[in-house]
Amino acid sequence: MSESGIPSGYRAAAVKAGIKASGNLDLALVVSDRPRAAAGTFTLNRIAAAPVQWDRARVPSASVRAIVVNAGNANAATGAEGLADVERTARAVAQAVGCGVDEVLVASTGVIGRRLPIEKLESGVRAAFERLEASPAAFEAASHAILTTDTRPKTVSLQAEIAGRPVRLFGFAKGAAMIGPRMATMLGFLFTDANVAPADLQAALSEAVERSFNCISVEGHTSTNDTVLLLAGGDGPQLAGDDLAAFAALVDEACTKLARMIPEDGEGATHLITIDVVGARDREEARTIARTVADSALVKTAIHGADPNWGRIVSAAGYSGVPFEESELSLELNGIPLYRDGVPLEVDLAAASASLRGSFETTILLTLRRGEGSIRFWTSDLTAEYVRLNADYTT
Amino acid sequence: MSESGIPSGYRAAAVKAGIKASGNLDLALVVSDRPRAAAGTFTLNRIAAAPVQWDRARVPSASVRAIVVNAGNANAATGAEGLADVERTARAVAQAVGCGVDEVLVASTGVIGRRLPIEKLESGVRAAFERLEASPAAFEAASHAILTTDTRPKTVSLQAEIAGRPVRLFGFAKGAAMIGPRMATMLGFLFTDANVAPADLQAALSEAVERSFNCISVEGHTSTNDTVLLLAGGDGPQLAGDDLAAFAALVDEACTKLARMIPEDGEGATHLITIDVVGARDREEARTIARTVADSALVKTAIHGADPNWGRIVSAAGYSGVPFEESELSLELNGIPLYRDGVPLEVDLAAASASLRGSFETTILLTLRRGEGSIRFWTSDLTAEYVRLNADYTT
Repeated sequence: MSESGIPSGYRAAAVKAGIKASGNLDLALVVSDRPRAAAGTFTLNRIAAAPVQWDRARVPSASVRAIVVNAGNANAATGAEGLADVERTARAVAQAVGCGVDEVLVASTGVIGRRLPIEKLESGVRAAFERLEASPAAFEAASHAILTTDTRPKTVSLQAEIAGRPVRLFGFAKGAAMIGPRMATMLGFLFTDANVAPADLQAALSEAVERSFNCISVEGHTSTNDTVLLLAGGDGPQLAGDDLAAFAALVDEACTKLARMIPEDGEGATHLITIDVVGARDREEARTIARTVADSALVKTAIHGADPNWGRIVSAAGYSGVPFEESELSLELNGIPLYRDGVPLEVDLAAASASLRGSFETTILLTLRRGEGSIRFWTSDLTAEYVRLNADYTT
Repeated sequence: MSESGIPSGYRAAAVKAGIKASGNLDLALVVSDRPRAAAGTFTLNRIAAAPVQWDRARVPSASVRAIVVNAGNANAATGAEGLADVERTARAVAQAVGCGVDEVLVASTGVIGRRLPIEKLESGVRAAFERLEASPAAFEAASHAILTTDTRPKTVSLQAEIAGRPVRLFGFAKGAAMIGPRMATMLGFLFTDANVAPADLQAALSEAVERSFNCISVEGHTSTNDTVLLLAGGDGPQLAGDDLAAFAALVDEACTKLARMIPEDGEGATHLITIDVVGARDREEARTIARTVADSALVKTAIHGADPNWGRIVSAAGYSGVPFEESELSLELNGIPLYRDGVPLEVDLAAASASLRGSFETTILLTLRRGEGSIRFWTSDLTAEYVRLNADYTT
């Protein structure tokens, strides 16, 4: 990432607070030198983590100064004590920064159902505050500190000229399992120096999330902690009209790039599967079909095994709940037509298998004849390595 | 199974028709010596197999004489040719038996999207007809012929005295993957000598299926071919009132026993997981929670690894779509209380892990405080062996 990738006025730091058993970096702090507008999207899981409850009550906001994130403990299913721990964490940040406690947003990821080691959090916050830097290296360290089973950090850095001014957008995310977002994914953070009104910022983020983080899955398990936050603010007048649309497109591009990195790094993944559904009645119908195909263990294992067992794909579409007729459905796998208008085609299955074996990227195109609704969805395959990783995670 | 287990007037046979590449038994035929009432429940998958479309149009029926089942080819996603193949199969049976083509029901299981080898089916039907026997051994062979990746046959044999007469009920089923029934499972067949009106028979079967086959999953993929059929008919007046209720209880017991055998034999399974949800608003709400927990790859891998990572269970309940409050939820795992009214309990996790490691059977109890709705649901765990089996099934 270039030096210029970090929008002006943001500083970051990462420390080893002692939350992860591994002793790795586990606490990230990002502080803004001025109040920023903030937008967020969050999990729809009824067991929403304590930090999700905290943030949800505060965004969209006209004034946020800091985001603090810990890995190694999700602070979810922790009851009233968990909420009290979030407040203590936010208070520690507010005291260091010299801002109000409501100007601090919080996120957590890790094991569910365990109390946060709150003293470690508090001293970690103080240590991180002392190290804040505006450098790309500091943001890189922050992007490492929020990881759990991810094998690599996930960052995006974009620039554009909007309303005659340079706009920078930097973001980072984490996630490799418990990925089945219905609202956002676990976790994404975006920072920009564009000046955008809070309501416009929320609208831009919500729409981008619908087309990015809400279009990915690993195993379809919607996390308790899914959170995407976007901070914005800078010089010049607030963006409006075409300028606001240009900004929204930038947010969309950043979210899509980050979201795609998550199934690409899905636990044990050997294929990144892109599912296009076109010709559905509307976008939600297309998403329902895409998600059902993406979450089918039988589809995922077939692709892992380079097995062109395409019946599993149309069968998954068939139980998605979308009331299409069989004669409306067509399928291509890696560009090879397999099924058209409900009728199987003559196919060289050996060639189809070879195309699956030869490439990390796999494409599925499902075409209906119901309307103009479409979606692009990304998922990973299901491997024995995924099972191994998840059969022994907490103990 | 005792000699008396087969209800009177039914004969069965199984042959190697050459449909399975392995050359094993792959065609089962059951013929009744008189017309029977018939009830059925079927998949809700929009890609319903051709034999499902055939049967669905004919049950409930007052007059069925035969059921023919093949394994090795699902005859699903096969278009109009697939339907024509079902009709040719039924016609071959009708000609041998000397009955109407509409008195023959058909079921198939195996790979999706391939044309049936119809001549092999037709000669298999003729060969099976020559071998029909009323013996338990013949029904045992039939129960073998319908298997695909199952490791063992699944049969049930019950007797009761109803309305002063002995009633016998024999059933067999198959299924080890692509198990996520929404209406029935793939495949179950039940035969009785009780005399029951078609509408009453359908009501008894539908209710039993709601509490049995619709309460199991392996990986949650609803098959294109799910079918449960129940034939009934015998001497004496048609059952009514308490006698009909006693018969319905017998059907319920048979369906529950067969259904449970499916996740017990789930592909690669090392645990049979029984999920009880109580205190939901109604049965459907309880089922939704149970199914979401059952289909979570993270819950299934944790139990496989004897990992008491109970946060995954409450998290799955949380994204089920049921709008409960966190403070209404409690959890026990193998009888060990872990979470009560939204608050984690002090737990000996090593003891919880040992209880998972020591037993094939695992119990999950989720308690809500919303009403009187409850369900019992069964599933299997997710193992590397499941992945191996499904990464290379057709090729």
